[in-house]
This record gives sequence, structure tokens and C-alpha cells, in this order.
Amino acid sequence: MTLQAKHPSESLVIKSELVLPNDTNTLNNLMGGRLMYLMDVVGAICALRHCNQGVVTASVDNVSFKAPIALGNIVTLQATVTRAFTTSMEVHIEVWAEDVLSKVKTKCNEAFFTFVALNESKKPMPIPEVIPETEREKELFDSALRRRQLRLILAGRMKPAEATELRALFENL
Amino acid sequence: MTLQAKHPSESLVIKSELVLPNDTNTLNNLMGGRLMYLMDVVGAICALRHCNQGVVTASVDNVSFKAPIALGNIVTLQATVTRAFTTSMEVHIEVWAEDVLSKVKTKCNEAFFTFVALNESKKPMPIPEVIPETEREKELFDSALRRRQLRLILAGRMKPAEATELRALFENL
Amino acid sequence: MTLQAKHPSESLVIKSELVLPNDTNTLNNLMGGRLMYLMDVVGAICALRHCNQGVVTASVDNVSFKAPIALGNIVTLQATVTRAFTTSMEVHIEVWAEDVLSKVKTKCNEAFFTFVALNESKKPMPIPEVIPETEREKELFDSALRRRQLRLILAGRMKPAEATELRALFENL
Amino acid sequence: MTLQAKHPSESLVIKSELVLPNDTNTLNNLMGGRLMYLMDVVGAICALRHCNQGVVTASVDNVSFKAPIALGNIVTLQATVTRAFTTSMEVHIEVWAEDVLSKVKTKCNEAFFTFVALNESKKPMPIPEVIPETEREKELFDSALRRRQLRLILAGRMKPAEATELRALFENL
Amino acid sequence: MTLQAKHPSESLVIKSELVLPNDTNTLNNLMGGRLMYLMDVVGAICALRHCNQGVVTASVDNVSFKAPIALGNIVTLQATVTRAFTTSMEVHIEVWAEDVLSKVKTKCNEAFFTFVALNESKKPMPIPEVIPETEREKELFDSALRRRQLRLILAGRMKPAEATELRALFENL
Amino acid sequence: MTLQAKHPSESLVIKSELVLPNDTNTLNNLMGGRLMYLMDVVGAICALRHCNQGVVTASVDNVSFKAPIALGNIVTLQATVTRAFTTSMEVHIEVWAEDVLSKVKTKCNEAFFTFVALNESKKPMPIPEVIPETEREKELFDSALRRRQLRLILAGRMKPAEATELRALFENL
Repeated sequence: MTLQAKHPSESLVIKSELVLPNDTNTLNNLMGGRLMYLMDVVGAICALRHCNQGVVTASVDNVSFKAPIALGNIVTLQATVTRAFTTSMEVHIEVWAEDVLSKVKTKCNEAFFTFVALNESKKPMPIPEVIPETEREKELFDSALRRRQLRLILAGRMKPAEATELRALFENL
Repeated sequence: MTLQAKHPSESLVIKSELVLPNDTNTLNNLMGGRLMYLMDVVGAICALRHCNQGVVTASVDNVSFKAPIALGNIVTLQATVTRAFTTSMEVHIEVWAEDVLSKVKTKCNEAFFTFVALNESKKPMPIPEVIPETEREKELFDSALRRRQLRLILAGRMKPAEATELRALFENL
Repeated sequence: MTLQAKHPSESLVIKSELVLPNDTNTLNNLMGGRLMYLMDVVGAICALRHCNQGVVTASVDNVSFKAPIALGNIVTLQATVTRAFTTSMEVHIEVWAEDVLSKVKTKCNEAFFTFVALNESKKPMPIPEVIPETEREKELFDSALRRRQLRLILAGRMKPAEATELRALFENL
Repeated sequence: MTLQAKHPSESLVIKSELVLPNDTNTLNNLMGGRLMYLMDVVGAICALRHCNQGVVTASVDNVSFKAPIALGNIVTLQATVTRAFTTSMEVHIEVWAEDVLSKVKTKCNEAFFTFVALNESKKPMPIPEVIPETEREKELFDSALRRRQLRLILAGRMKPAEATELRALFENL
Repeated sequence: MTLQAKHPSESLVIKSELVLPNDTNTLNNLMGGRLMYLMDVVGAICALRHCNQGVVTASVDNVSFKAPIALGNIVTLQATVTRAFTTSMEVHIEVWAEDVLSKVKTKCNEAFFTFVALNESKKPMPIPEVIPETEREKELFDSALRRRQLRLILAGRMKPAEATELRALFENL
Repeated sequence: MTLQAKHPSESLVIKSELVLPNDTNTLNNLMGGRLMYLMDVVGAICALRHCNQGVVTASVDNVSFKAPIALGNIVTLQATVTRAFTTSMEVHIEVWAEDVLSKVKTKCNEAFFTFVALNESKKPMPIPEVIPETEREKELFDSALRRRQLRLILAGRMKPAEATELRALFENL
């Protein structure tokens, strides 16, 4: 049976949260680890919607925390699937913080998570392909190959010499 | 005032946890995001001990989740500071899972987190240097430069041509 | 100073969540109280976005739980402001549950929450008016008067005889 | 088999809690949604005790939050079953807040929750009748009919013309 | 100013809870540490009500967990103050578990917690005396001296030879 | 089959935590009940490692809270098994608090928890003996008998006259 390919818009996930006291460090800012937890949940929901199977997190690419998010801020996360690779899929996650009183909304960070689809026996399962539609979706679809090569090299599962796509990363990430 | 340099052993952190129901996904395995939360907490404690200032998470390098961690398993995390860079420090975190009944203990993943020291006005503060002692600590100290270059390139803050140390990463990570 | 009126689309909030073990009762369904907590948070974020002040929940209209939401389901909540009344605003919240494997998505319930805007001294503050745009928004804007009359009668603050709009409720809710 | 009718005192539930930081909004008051979660739990325990079956929340009547409850306050909830309707029962919940230092104790709100009894196959089950004893219990038993008619009308399951008991609500709620 | 003595009934606390998944160990029973957390909260509320000051836990006497409490059970805790000692007070806590389906209610354990009253500068404060009324309250009031002596000996702050009341403990605990 | 005896070092557990807002009382100190929860978890992990069976908490000896632990402090708990008694084992737990800015590290308290090993049918199971190695381990091994007698007397399961080891407790605790 061939799985029917899907558009990223079919599995788009949005999640807004309030930063509560227990989410913060002693500087009253959202802890990085709590934000990564939220990113993982929103990414997993996106992956679940795309593949209609159980999913597990396989890897998280480099995440940089650019702007602090304060107690009482609204955090909004958005996740879209960028590309599928047989039994895994890459999900792009973006994070914004909103200060209610000042109305300032800041993009705080973004990251790429990879999820693997598993059936009930915990065996990897094939997943639908992704058909990008917008310009942004097409760029993310294309650059997914480069990111995958870097991931494989960093995991010691690909030799740099084989990473033909990766050179682009060093010019155009 | 010059800060007194410290050994990694002075800020070593160990943290064992039980995997509880709410930490797990529908496959009864520890969620990746929950593990990253635990890694961030143990990393932050290590950074706090090294610099005796408030700290915030600045970045997380690529994390790969190799082995599932089941409900009821014991998870043990260990964090050591590898190198300091003026106002930031890199922390190495390793994760093991133990199955109580079978006595099998598996190394599940490892990652590098970077923390920045902040004073009460949330301004970055200088931190003590790291003096590696063991062979392993010296390797992590040396390779920290390559990881930092990759981080800066990935964050768009360094050009690949300037990353003289990075070539080593592609041969010897 | 006159506050600038806003469209409901400016404060729309979406929040997707996974139902985790601790959210469920012994029948493995999402507990009603946990869902109301989620509805309150999403409603508060919507109110915060509309008025750019601190807010507190003033009342919750009758909520009916029509369909069970199972462990592992995706719950999606959407909140829109319907109408402002000097220092309070009504927020409409809708809830859907998605079963990942069967792809079935069910509307589970909806409710109207009322929030009051407070300044830092905890005094009620005037809030922007709501300008409905779509047909649905206009209906919710109009019917908000009737719901408000019922709320006031139920709270013992209006006599039924004065509720000129309320008769419509009994014909056309 | 006929189920033996029970008195409300047999399933009375009391629950005192401390308001902790994560229960509060940015104004340091207990969040409405957190209070509704507590009300649902105490109501469910009351329903469980009355029917000795699994229960799910079927509906929550209009709740009005009259007085703020501060961080560090003691919240006390009390739940009593008012009347049974074949497979559902209405539970009355009252909430008080106590300020420890000033010794002031305030009644904050009250509400009516309806629970349905389910067996292990999640089918509705008959439940024992309620035999009111005190004057207050008898009043709540009698007025339960009017509240039920309003609930059915609001849920679109009864026409206002049929609500013979409801007229009383508009005179005597 | 002399503080007005109080009866134990004035600070009696009752708290019923549902055992949720995250409260349980891999055998699906309530974890001992979670129960001690609940006991501490209910004891603190009792102490707060008795002394109308901030309180901290000073010590917990030997606790024995006699009967397992299962997932889905109702746990009910009751706390009463037994006796005051200048700036500290002893609180007696009893715990029952109820199985909803079988209607079996079991006394699971009991314990004595000691709390100290602190003002805002965290200095110990005098607290009202306890006037026992019932036979049970009088017994607990009297035996409080013996328990206090054992506590002081176990903490190394009293020599066994001085514990004139303690001999009774070995005959009549 | 004879179970192979183990050294305490084989089941040593260390756990460091940050004190977060929801762990604290209104005086911004770690709540005693939250600390006992942490002690129970670390003790259970130690017992799980020693016996490789499911475990439940059987009793907690007198715990005295000597020093307050503040919000933002690092709490470190260490657990070692001291002695086994057929199907139960005693675990010694020590707690330290570290203030990051002042670098002050304080021993806050210590306690003895007893755990029972259970198989999947919840029947008690024999566990390996403990072979103490260091001087400290040998002292704890020897004094375990006295603590056990006190536990049995306090639980009403031994008469004081039979507690031949216990007299030592009153001279040499």
C-alpha cells in the first residue's frame, strides 16, 4: 500500500502557553529545558498528525536561545513538517514570546527535531511523503538534506567526504 | 579581580531519577522533551557550581536519542564543565538508563549545553577558567573549540572559512 | 484616552496538547477539571492579548462535556473574544479531540468565559471594544448580550423581568 | 436489584489546599482554571462515594468567581450530592478562602457539577437515589429539577415551553 | 499580649485526594514519599490555622506504611493539633484509603509532625496553647510529652536519663 | 538459589535538584513534605538497585529538619543501603543544601527509610545481604539492629523488654 503524500499545512501545530512560576529560573526567565520540553511536545503532535502512528524523538538539532522569555509572557510555538525520510520526518519549530503590557512580540528561537514513526510493536513504519507548497516550505524541504547530512556526520554515521550536500550548509545555512 | 580557575571535578553533578507515568509517551517510553528538561537542569546546576552566579541556557548542541528509556527505569545524568569562554561555559552531559529487573544499564545519549553567567542586573559576567585534569577532561577541553566554531557557524555568527579548528570535527568527532 | 477597538482575529489563540497519564481518570479519559484548566489558560491568553492588561477569570458559563477524550489524544483549544463590556470581556472557547491512529477529529465542547482586566493595583480597567468581522463573529457579538443577562440573573444581580434580551435565549440559543 | 438510597452525609467530601506559586497568575491570585480543577476533583470524589462506580464529569453549571484567592491562602472545598437522575447525579460544591494572618475566611464561590456513573465498559449505570435530611439538603434536592431543566435547555435538549419547573428559577434562584 | 488558647477542633483539617498515575510506583501503588508530601501539607494547614503565623516543618516522627494505597483510590487525611510548646506545636495526622468499587475503607497510617511558627523575619514566635476537649484529645495532649522526649533524645538534644516521661512510652505507646 | 551479597557502593545514589518556586512555602523555603518526597525517591532508587525487584516504602524513621533550604538553592541527596533483613532493607539518606552565590554548603538532615522488595504478585521477596566495607558502613550496619528494634517497638510489634540492642540507642545514638 502506498501512503498518500501530505502537505505541511495538514499537520501544522500551534500552541500558546503562559510562563508560570515553576517554569522559571532564579532570574525569573523561562528555563531552557522547559522550552525544549514544550518544543518536543509541539513537534511530536505535528509528527503524529503527519504520520498517524506513534512517534518518538530521534534527534534535536542545535538550538540557540537568543532572547530571554519572562515570567507572565505568552509563549507561542509553531511546528511544521519539512520532509520525510522513509521512517523518519523532520519538523521545524519556531518560538515567539509576547509581553502583554508592552505588546512587544519577539522571535526567540527555532529548531529542527526529527521523529521516527513506530507501530505498536515499536518497529519503525513508513510514513507519507511531504509535498511542500509555499516558497518557505520548498526551501525547508530542500535544505532538509543538508541538515540530515550534518546530523549523520555528528552522530558518526556518515563520513564528511560523502556529504555532498553539506558544503552548501557552510555557505548558505 | 582575577577569578580562581577550577577543576571539572569541583562542579561535577549527578542526578538519578525514576521514570514516572507522566514522563512517558503512548509507547510508555520517556519523552525526548522530558529528558532534555532533565539535562538542562543538571547542566544548569553544574554551571551554577562552576561560576557561582546566576546562569541561563545559551545553546544546546545536536542531541541524538539512541535508546528508548522505559517507564520505571532509573535514569542517571552526569554533568561536567569542559571549558570556559569569558562569560559562557560548555557543559558535557551524559545519560544512562538502568532496567531494575534485568540489571541492564545502557548509555542513552550525551550532549553539550552552553550556559552564560549573569549577575542580578542580567548582565553577562566573567567566569573562572577550567583546568582539565584527566585525559578525558583534556580531550573535552581541546575539542570544545571545534564545537564552539560549529555553534557559531550554525548560528550565522562565524563564516566557515574562519573555522580553522572545525576541519578536525569532520575527521575526528 | 480612547482605547482603539480591535478585531477578534487580533487575539485569536490556538493551543494543542497531548493527553498525558496524569490528566486522566481511572477510565483513561481526560478529566473534566483538567480540560477546564486548559480552557481557562487559553481564554486568559486571549483576554491578555485583547486588553494588554492583567486579567482574572470572572465567570464561566454552563459547560457540557459531550464526548470523552482519551489518553494519547491530541486536544486542540481555540479562543476568540466575542464582545467587551467596559472592564470585562467575553471569550468563546472551542475544544476538539483528535485520535491519531483513526484520524477521527471530534468537537468535544465549547464554553464562554468572562475575564476582567485589572491594573497592577488590582483595579478594573477599561478595555478596547470588539469589532466583529465575519458572520460568525457578528452572531457571537449579538448573542453576547443575552448570555450576559442570563449570567447576571444566575448571579442574582438582575431580575428576570429586566432581561429583555433573554427571551431570545429561550427560543434561539 | 434495587440500589439502596443514600443520605448526602454519606458522600460528603472536604478538601483543604494551600495556594502554591504555580497555581497563581501574574497578579498572585489563584487562577480560575486551577480552582475549577480542584472543584472537579472534589466533586468526582463525592460522586464516586455516592455511586461506587467510575464517574465522568457531564456538565458544569455557571460558575462566578466573586473574590480573589491569594498565594499562600488556604482554600477549602466541600462537596455534597444533591439529587440523582437515573445514571447521573448533581453535586453541589462550595469554596472558601482563608487568610492565615488576618484570620479572615471568605466564601468565594459555589457551583453545581453533574457526573455520570460508568461501568468498566464505559456504559452508564443506575445510581442510588439521594435522601435529603437537613433543610438545606431538601432545598437543594428540590431546586435540582429547575437547574436540570436549564441545563437541558442550554444544551439544546429541551424546549423552554416544556420547562415547567424553570419559571421558578427566574423568581427564586 | 497573651495569646488566646484554642481547641483542637478550631484547626481541624480534612483533605481528600484521588490517587493519580504520577503518584504511583511501578506496582501501581501510591508512593510513600507522595503520601508524606500530602501529610506535610495537611499538617502545615492545621498548624497555620492554630497559630496564624507562617510555619515550617521541624520534624516528623517515625511513620509506618501498613497498607498499600492503589491507583484510583480515595485518600483522606485528617490533621489535628495535639499540644503547643512555646514556639512549636505537634500535629497528629491520620490517613485512610477507600476503594470505590469494593467500598472498603482502610486506616493506612498515622504520624506526628512538629511545626515551628515563624514571623516575616523568620524568627520563632510564641503560639497559642492547646485546650483538649475530648478523651482522645486529652490522651494525645498527655502523650505529647513522651513523644517530645523521644524526639529530643533521637536528635541528641536530651540525655535518656532526663526523659522521665519516656519510660511510659515503652509500656504504653 | 542464594542471592549474592552486595556492597553499599554498588547501590549508592546521588541526586541533585534545584529548588523551584512550587517546592517552597510562603517563607520561600523548601517545604518539608517536598524534601521527604525527594528522599523517598532517592531511597527507592537505592533499594531498587540493591535488590533488583520492585520495592515499596515500609517505614521512615524520625526526621529532623535542622536548616532551611531556600528557593534557588541546590539540594543534593545521597542514599546508601545499610543492612538487609530477609525481605526488607534499611537505606540511609543524607541531604545537603548549597547556596550558589555564597558557596556555603550545609548538611540539612539525614534519615533512615525501610523498603520491602515485592515481586509482580506483590509478595515480599528475599533480598541480597549487605557487606559493609568502610568504617562508616560498618557502624551503620551495626546500629541498624538498634534502629530496627525501636521501629518495632514504636509500631507496637516488639515489647521494650525484648529490645536487647536498644539500650545502646539511649547511650550512643
